[in-house]
Formats: sequence, C-alpha cells, structure tokens
Amino acid sequence: MQHRPIQRALLSVSDKTGIVAFAQALVQRGVTILSTGGTAKLLREHQLPVTDVSEHTGQNEIMDGRVKTLHPKIHGGILGRRDQDQAVMNEQDIAPIDLVAVNLYPFAQTVADPNCSHEDAVENIDIGGPTMVRAAAKNHRDVTIVVNASDYDAVIAEMDANENSLTFASRFDLAIKAFEHTAQYDGMIANYFGARLPQQNSKFPRTFNAQFVKKQDLRYGENSHQSAAFYVEAQPAEASVATAKQLQGKELSFNNIADTDAALECVKSFDQPACVIVKHANPCGVAVADTALEAYNRAFKTDPTSAFGGIIAFNRELDAATAKAIVERQFVEVIIAPVVSSEARDIVAGKANVRLLECGTWEAKRPAAYDFKRVNGGLLVQDSDHGEITLDDLKIVSEVQPTAEQLNDLMFCWKVAKFVKSNAIVYAKDGMTIGVGAGQMSRVYSAKIAGIKAADESLEVAGSVMASDAFFPFRDGIDAAAAAGIKAIIQPGGSIRDEEIIAAANEHGIAMVFTGMRHFRH
Amino acid sequence: MQHRPIQRALLSVSDKTGIVAFAQALVQRGVTILSTGGTAKLLREHQLPVTDVSEHTGQNEIMDGRVKTLHPKIHGGILGRRDQDQAVMNEQDIAPIDLVAVNLYPFAQTVADPNCSHEDAVENIDIGGPTMVRAAAKNHRDVTIVVNASDYDAVIAEMDANENSLTFASRFDLAIKAFEHTAQYDGMIANYFGARLPQQNSKFPRTFNAQFVKKQDLRYGENSHQSAAFYVEAQPAEASVATAKQLQGKELSFNNIADTDAALECVKSFDQPACVIVKHANPCGVAVADTALEAYNRAFKTDPTSAFGGIIAFNRELDAATAKAIVERQFVEVIIAPVVSSEARDIVAGKANVRLLECGTWEAKRPAAYDFKRVNGGLLVQDSDHGEITLDDLKIVSEVQPTAEQLNDLMFCWKVAKFVKSNAIVYAKDGMTIGVGAGQMSRVYSAKIAGIKAADESLEVAGSVMASDAFFPFRDGIDAAAAAGIKAIIQPGGSIRDEEIIAAANEHGIAMVFTGMRHFRH
Repeated sequence: MQHRPIQRALLSVSDKTGIVAFAQALVQRGVTILSTGGTAKLLREHQLPVTDVSEHTGQNEIMDGRVKTLHPKIHGGILGRRDQDQAVMNEQDIAPIDLVAVNLYPFAQTVADPNCSHEDAVENIDIGGPTMVRAAAKNHRDVTIVVNASDYDAVIAEMDANENSLTFASRFDLAIKAFEHTAQYDGMIANYFGARLPQQNSKFPRTFNAQFVKKQDLRYGENSHQSAAFYVEAQPAEASVATAKQLQGKELSFNNIADTDAALECVKSFDQPACVIVKHANPCGVAVADTALEAYNRAFKTDPTSAFGGIIAFNRELDAATAKAIVERQFVEVIIAPVVSSEARDIVAGKANVRLLECGTWEAKRPAAYDFKRVNGGLLVQDSDHGEITLDDLKIVSEVQPTAEQLNDLMFCWKVAKFVKSNAIVYAKDGMTIGVGAGQMSRVYSAKIAGIKAADESLEVAGSVMASDAFFPFRDGIDAAAAAGIKAIIQPGGSIRDEEIIAAANEHGIAMVFTGMRHFRH
Repeated sequence: MQHRPIQRALLSVSDKTGIVAFAQALVQRGVTILSTGGTAKLLREHQLPVTDVSEHTGQNEIMDGRVKTLHPKIHGGILGRRDQDQAVMNEQDIAPIDLVAVNLYPFAQTVADPNCSHEDAVENIDIGGPTMVRAAAKNHRDVTIVVNASDYDAVIAEMDANENSLTFASRFDLAIKAFEHTAQYDGMIANYFGARLPQQNSKFPRTFNAQFVKKQDLRYGENSHQSAAFYVEAQPAEASVATAKQLQGKELSFNNIADTDAALECVKSFDQPACVIVKHANPCGVAVADTALEAYNRAFKTDPTSAFGGIIAFNRELDAATAKAIVERQFVEVIIAPVVSSEARDIVAGKANVRLLECGTWEAKRPAAYDFKRVNGGLLVQDSDHGEITLDDLKIVSEVQPTAEQLNDLMFCWKVAKFVKSNAIVYAKDGMTIGVGAGQMSRVYSAKIAGIKAADESLEVAGSVMASDAFFPFRDGIDAAAAAGIKAIIQPGGSIRDEEIIAAANEHGIAMVFTGMRHFRH
C-alpha cells in the first residue's frame, strides 16, 4: 500500500542533533533538500546541496522570518494528495515534499530563563514549524514527518529496505509523534501564559495542560474489572518508581506501582540506612539502622503479618545479605533500591516472581513537583508535600524536656507519620516503628490501633515516642498514649485546646514538641 | 499602550453560534470582512459584504480547501508587527488583519461517531485554522484572536468603549484562550491516534494528553504549606462535585472537595433515599431509609464522633426537616445534594459558614471515566470503578442461606465497602452501617476496628451482616466476625483458602455470598 519514494525533503530543526548525517544520507539517496535559516547554514557548511525555502517559493523571507514557510508552494507540496491533487500540483508548479523533518525549540527552556521577558517568550512561539509538522502529519498517507532526531536512523534504514519509501505503518506512527509534539508544545505555552493573566495572582494556569508518556499497559487497575496503564513524565525530575528499571520478576501491577511509590518516597526521608515496608498504601514497618540489613530486620518486626506480600524500599544499595534475609524470610511483591549489587541480583533470581527494581540515586534536595487528586469531573492539583522540619524547628511545649534519644526518635517517627494515611499515629523507639495507626476517621482510633498492633506483636510501647500527623482535638489521645507508656509526643500543635493538651502531657510527665507543620495524606 | 483599531477581520468558524451578529456588529463599525467557505456563505446570506480569502490572496482555493489560508498575504497580515514591519507590508501589498475569529471543529465529536473511518478522522484535522489561531495569538500585541463565540459581545463592547480597539490585557487574555484551544485540539488528536497504533492493542494512547479548566484557586492544599487549585473538565459527563454550585458558606478547601467527592460518589450507589457522612476520605456513617431525614439520623448514629466536622451527601433533595436536623445537631463542613429546597437553604443560612452545595441530578447509568493516581514522576490511569453487581450475581457458598433481609443488608453493605479505603470491613444492619473498619494493612485489623467502633457507640453487632472489599486470606476474619455476632458475610471470594473460609462460615452458621468482584480503593 502507498509506496511513496522520498524525493524531496524539507529540513528545519531547532535540535540539530544528527541533522547533518541525516541530510547526508538523504542526499546520497538522491533526495533534494529544502531548508531554512540555521539548518540551511549548517548543512551548507558540510558541503550539502540545499535549496532555500525562499528560493523555492519565490517569496522573500520577511518580518525577520515570521513568515517563511507559510506559503502555498510549501503547504501544497506537503498537503497535496499524490493521487487526486496531482493535476493541480502540476498546473500550479507545486513540487511534492515527501519528508518533513522539523522540531520545535522547547518553549519550556526559553521561559525557564529567569530573565525571559514577555516579549522573549512571545517571540519564541513558533508558528511556521508547528504548521509544517501538523500538515505533514495530516498527510501521512503520502508524507513522512520526523520530529525526533532519534528516528533519523530508522527512517534511513527503512528507506533502504523499501525502495526509498517508508511503510504506511511507519508514516502513521511518526505522524502521531508529530501531534504529540505539537500538543505538548501548545500545552506548555497555554500553561505558561495561563499563569500570567493580569487579573489573577496564582501560579496555577487557567487551564492545566499535561502530557504523560505511556511506560506500560497494565494487566488491570486497582481491581480486575478496571483497565489501566502506567504513564510517566517525559523528563522525570528525580529517581522514582517512574524511572526505575525492573531487573527481574513478574509484571508490575497497578497496586505494586502505587505502593512502591509510597515506600520509596518515604524511605527518601531518611539520611541513615533505612527500610520501609508498605502494604495497602501505608508503611507497616519502618526502621533506620547502621546497615540496610539491620534496618530491614527491624522494619519487618513491626508487623510481620502485614509485611507478608509487602513492598520493601531501601535508601542504600541492596546488598547480598539483605536480599538473602528478605527472600528467605518472607513473601515479597517488590523490592526497590537505588542500586542493587550483582550478588543481590543473583540471590533474588532464586525467586523468579519477585519484582526487583533499581531506581538510581536521588539528591537530598527534592525537586518541586505537583501532586494530583482525581475527583469525578475534575482534578485537584497541589504542590507535592516536601515540607520538612529540622530539630531547630521544634518547639518544646511540655515541662519535661525530651532527651537526645527521644528527639531522634521523635524526628524519625514524624517522618514516618507523614507517609501514613490520615489520621496517622505512629509509635516508635530506637529508630524503629512499634505501632502504626493508619487511616482512621477519628484520631483516637488511630492511637488505639497503634497500641493494639504493638501489643499483638509483643513490642514494648513503654518508653516509646509517638507522632501525630495533625494536632490533637482533645486530650483523650494523650491520656491513651500515657496509659500505653508513651514518653514523648511530636505533633503540629495549633488546636484551640492546645493548653489542655499540654496540661495533659505535663500531668503524665510526657515530653511534647510542636512542629508547626501538619502532614495530612489521604 | 498599543491602541489597535480593528479595520480588517478574518472570520472562519466551525461553531457558527453568534457569528452573523458578530459580523454585523463589525461591519457597522467599518470593519472589512475576509472569510472562507461555510462562514462566507452564511454571512452573504445575511447580506453582509464579505471578501473571499482566495480573492484577497489571488490564490485559488486548491486541494478541496486543504490550502486556503496558508498564504503570506494572510499570515503576513496576521503576523506583521504594526510598527517595524509596516514598510514590508506596504511594499508587498500585505493588508493588516486586525482580528481573527476562528474556531476548530471539535475533533472529539468527529471521532465519537462509531462509523468514523481513519480517513474521516484524518480529513477532519484542521491545518489552516490552528495556524491562523496560533499566528494571531502570537501577535496579540497587534491582533485580536477570538476562539469562543461567548467572547463576541465583550469584544464589540470593548471596541465601542475604546475607539474600535481592544486593550492589550484583553488581547493577551484572548491569546491565551487561543493556545488553550489549540493545545486541547492537538491533545485530542494525539490521544485518538495514539490509541490506534497498529503494534499495540490498548485503549490507552501512547501519550496521555489532558486539559483541565481552573474552577478556583484554593487557600492551600492538603496542608497549609502546599498551594493548590481545583480544576474541572471542560465538559463534565455527570453531576459531581465538579459541577456543584456552592449556595453558601466558607470557601471550599482542598480536603472539602476531595471528601465531598467521596461522599457524593458513594451516595450515588443507592436507589433508596440515602445519606453518606465522610471524614478523612472514608465513609464514617451510611444509611438508607424512607426519607432523607431518617437516612441522615441513622447514618449519624454509626459514629457521631467522626461525623463531627464531616461532609454529608444525599441522593435526594435536601429538605427543610433534614437541614434543620443537621445544623441543630452537629458541626458540619459541607452538605451536598442534587437539589436543595428553598426552605432548606433558609435554614442552613443560619449557619453562615456551612458550605452548601447543589450538584444536580445524575443518571442511574454512570458514564465511563478515567481515574488517576499520581506517583512521583508519573501517573497511573485506570477506568473509574463503576463495577456493580446485582442480587443475581451473588453466589451463595454457605450451607445457611441468607434471608431476604440479610440479602438487602449484604447488598447495602457491599456498596459502602466499595468506598471505604482498603482493607475495608463494614458491618451493617437494617440499611445502616454499624461499624466501619478502614484503611488497614491487614484485613483482620479492619474487622477488629469495625467491631470496636460498633461497641464504642453501643450499637449491637449481633445479627448484623459484614462486607469485605476483598477476599479473606485466612479464616481468622470469619472467626472474629462470628465472635462479634455477624450472621451473614459478603465478599468477592477467590482466595486459595476459600474452602477453609467457607468451612469456617458453616461452622459458625454464618451465611456467606461471593460477589466475584473486588473493590480495592486506596
């Protein structure tokens, strides 16, 4: 179907990667090259025969290049249907253009410059480029459009295999890439200017335009009657579940990916070697220690029942000893670490189903990002919760002062509570969770659950510390904590009953610190 | 700044709404009209003087209109900078075009036709239109671009107030709308064709392109250190929190919107008058009854502590009696109902802070939609969970048969469990929740919590039924339910230990039904 030997090509690219070699290959195959501006200059420097678009159209380039290619000779050449429009093309001397290689200067890069003025941003909006890209993509039955330098080699290879033509399937595939390119381009422009309306004072644009790239189709979604796919950002800002490479194991499920994200993002909070075990979107065991192995052993102890079939994340290399401890002890769905040693890989290979992910390392300073919450008919967009506090931010509000050890545990516990679904109460001791009370509609039940879980696993609460993701509305949570033997509490503060809450802590001889920052997570 | 009297306009619209009146108003103000095709024909039918674009350019329309406006006379006229390009415009006889009114045939509508072929879809991709839209938007310093019929009146009014010119601020605003229009257009094309790649068999396109429209900036996100905004779909498919009209009360918060969505989507599950109270993303009380009032009274009873400061949703009109019962009894953040009676409005008005929302009615058959889950660097996309079962789908697996009353309660309970965060266990009796066990990392704890909550509220579990959102991995959950007095259980089934689970039910004389469908929700 539709053999379309490429005889004339128009090359006009912002990203010049590979363009010289691509043009050379085209010229060697007898293709005539049309070009403009910087691309034409570069090709001429490499002794390639190039016809300027202005020469081809007979229309001088005017208005500093604003109107170069917006001409019937160019767009008739691109849009003409090789069968039914042949007569008019002959009559009007419109030469067919069989291949268009155009890509657009990334608008995001222009506006990322803090000195970029409104005029600079506007001047960087390309009009001719997207039009050629879109026209060629529309006419993919007859024309090849290439927007990515990474596709040049495949285009040449296919021309060689197919008498200088691409297959329809390839032209269609490239056409879709073209619309993906222009959709992303105009989305960026709409986002940028939409956040700069004079009448609004908001960083959130009037329309929110987003493009994600499919990484994989999934067998199903949260449940088997829901179909699903996993999409990633074109350029993820840091190591994450989105960048992770799966080294072995069964295909990742929807719930695997969501839980792996929760586990990995939580384990990033810690400087010391740490391990986080997640089940049903909540950490069910977290610990820090001198080694990854010890951290895992202690995290597991919090709740071995829930850890069964869990997701395990590390902030250090997965070494052989830790890998061995995991696969010998428990059923695990996913293990993720920044790096996996080759010995650890060999050990996990003994359990072929275990999904082993290596995500690369991350920086201590987390890049800003947007978090989304879907509601029916809409989308809530917010800054990702990268709020962090240091020891200096803590305000000791109780008569009893926390000890140095308690302060360490309070900070540890606080970081865990941030990743537990609200209302969240976490008990911890010696850098290990003792009980995790998650996802309750009233805070006192979260406290109860943390206590029950600790007791069920025979973990001693007495002497532990407690974190609450939000303030206590009543003193009952403090009384319950005291009864369980909690010795220090970390919480945001800010309740209208803070005085009563502090009095309760003093009554029980509990040390209490306020963070001034809440961490709801639903 | 930049007074730009409009003297020449190019009108070429797919959506003809208001175009005749707009053109008349322009002509009355001395504006020369250029037009093409159907728009030109329509204007001529209304005795309006119109110059065809082909006459203006001297270039016949060729290729069935594929190349009409892609001409230097048009794009020089749009893109020419009125100061620095004046000389070349004069020299080349390029007349300035001061206003462009172009909108694009909604691609989504073309492809929604089940008979739409690949060729039809391709033919409906507009090339000239988006180019004029983008060119005019780029040159908003000098040119007015109008893509929405709803803006015509304002444009004329502003011309009248401003000596036939728009202000720069208005031209900029309209330019952003233009890029929003083209971004959405190419996003739709990329989504459509990206799901039709020959090498893939998936409804999920290679890139996922989405555009949402800001409904409101929010004071903050889930927490005060996160900024946030609420976006909605351009055309929400059904009544939802996104379509809801706020009748009174404080500004909605991020958490209000998320919780209102959860409450409303849950209450949609029921045919009888129903009430759902949500706190921290979980239903904490749900009931059905003969009236909204009774449903509320019973939903409240499940967990009055959590209902404090909750979100209350109804699937019937909010009437005076129900409104009165709520505001007299409890602190409430949001009330939402399809309709609010004027008496109910007056009653709620007594509590000025209460957010009262009216969302309109919905159809029993829910439109398909996508649900999203954000992960760092990516997005999980899945079908919204609209999975439903009827009595006929139930498989009775126990020796004891459920009674008709129990079957009703099982169905009720199952619908609630679908909206409780996993692992979810719900106890219910007589169409009212008795205990809700939410968000636990192991199922047995969810069962424990449901029991504890029922006991704490002095609700009798004996004789109740129980729903579990997923199968029981072990018999312990059944044993615990029996000890609490549960008489019938609904669950998906499908565990490798189903036989053991059924045996446990038989041992305790519990009726058990399988749904064959799981409802994880995280």
